[in-house]
Amino acid sequence: MNILLVFAHPEPRSLNGALRDVAVAELAGQGHAVRVSDLYAQGWKSVVDRADFPALAPGARLMPAPASGQAFAGGGLTEDVKAEQAKLLWADVLILQFPLWWYTMPAILKGWVDRVFAYGFAYGVGEHSERHWGDRFGEGTLAGKRAMLIVTAGGWGEHYAPRGVNGPIDDLLFPINHGILYYPGYEVLPAFVAYRADRLDDGGFAHVAERLRARMRTLATTPPIPYRRQNGGDYLIPSLHLRPGLDAPGTTGFALHVNGTAHEPG
Amino acid sequence: MNILLVFAHPEPRSLNGALRDVAVAELAGQGHAVRVSDLYAQGWKSVVDRADFPALAPGARLMPAPASGQAFAGGGLTEDVKAEQAKLLWADVLILQFPLWWYTMPAILKGWVDRVFAYGFAYGVGEHSERHWGDRFGEGTLAGKRAMLIVTAGGWGEHYAPRGVNGPIDDLLFPINHGILYYPGYEVLPAFVAYRADRLDDGGFAHVAERLRARMRTLATTPPIPYRRQNGGDYLIPSLHLRPGLDAPGTTGFALHVNGTAHEPG
Repeated sequence: MNILLVFAHPEPRSLNGALRDVAVAELAGQGHAVRVSDLYAQGWKSVVDRADFPALAPGARLMPAPASGQAFAGGGLTEDVKAEQAKLLWADVLILQFPLWWYTMPAILKGWVDRVFAYGFAYGVGEHSERHWGDRFGEGTLAGKRAMLIVTAGGWGEHYAPRGVNGPIDDLLFPINHGILYYPGYEVLPAFVAYRADRLDDGGFAHVAERLRARMRTLATTPPIPYRRQNGGDYLIPSLHLRPGLDAPGTTGFALHVNGTAHEPG
Repeated sequence: MNILLVFAHPEPRSLNGALRDVAVAELAGQGHAVRVSDLYAQGWKSVVDRADFPALAPGARLMPAPASGQAFAGGGLTEDVKAEQAKLLWADVLILQFPLWWYTMPAILKGWVDRVFAYGFAYGVGEHSERHWGDRFGEGTLAGKRAMLIVTAGGWGEHYAPRGVNGPIDDLLFPINHGILYYPGYEVLPAFVAYRADRLDDGGFAHVAERLRARMRTLATTPPIPYRRQNGGDYLIPSLHLRPGLDAPGTTGFALHVNGTAHEPG
């Protein structure tokens, strides 16, 4: 398979850097083609601004979504963004790797999403009608591909448990897994998370690395999180409310959008 | 009161720009002192990197948390970060205003959090013992102050309802409200959210503006979201699991960390 790993840590000699090397070596060893977008090393521009839309007239009001759509449709996005989109089309599997900073991704990676996931590419795709509300949440440009997160967290795993003070890790990652990856069509594998990242000794690292290798060996076979398809009949259109009766009684929050219990291999 | 509004949209002639002006005018009209951090206008640097820690030796490994802590303790953070921290200490109320991009804040605002919320300032504060796990989630440097979000979303409000396909807006904003604002001590007011932001006509704008003015008049009196204090007895230490029996039967996810039902004025 073709695999793209997007890496978002400023220090190559970090735990993240070491885990990236573990993942890439394991994938290459299996014969996969691997490319890495190292956002810090590339000097990735993280903010959406006028410079992203060279065709926008100097005095024109910047409306990011229409500007993005017009630039995408006309081939007028910047070269750095077009290169990342080409990598996404090339890759069968996308891996986003980052340290959890303030319960989500670092700014540089958010800026990769904000700029690369253009209108017409990752959103604003497909027809809107009474039966179909755009190609998204299970359909879209990146349908048929798989994606997963590799995340390090400084805190304890217990603090991210179902009753932990931070909130459950699956819920904290839902806006990314469901809102960023499932939205344009990816099948999303459960995240790989390493906790207490600042305190790992050699034995701890060896254990985490082995867990990660196992996940890299099963990219093609790990069952994805069974998010519900937007246009598959589970949601009313246009309210996009989950149809009554599909969920188990008492289900609330993000769990409504998962059909049954996700397999948790990592 | 002293009020800081952090603004994160690239276009002053946007709905966000208009709503910022509405908020600032209403607050100033009431006699409050208002400052605005306009991140795009300031050319805010959004990525954490070595340049943030001038005292770090050239060959030294960059570990963001310790580097942040050492720089904060020694007065060695960069001037742009110190200026924002001084504004936070000055302000009785912090408002973060942004368009919802991919279900969270734009990269430039995430980069404001990543850089300004330094170790020793917003995290890594207070003692860790068997009875107290740091000054956070209800305690911390910014305790006694209030914070709220002003958010615009392109999508329909229904799609962010409890059964909506995007997930409930309160859950999507939980990592920000609880994880970024409540963490360093803020009392967090329910977010102000304007939906269908790209489709507002004049009448729609007038309605949204009046709702926003009403919220700006009640900053001091709106009941905050009743998140549970970490060190107030509700959580076991060190697991930081919510103590059994405090929550209503069947409660799961982020809702566990809210004591009762939040008032929803906006």
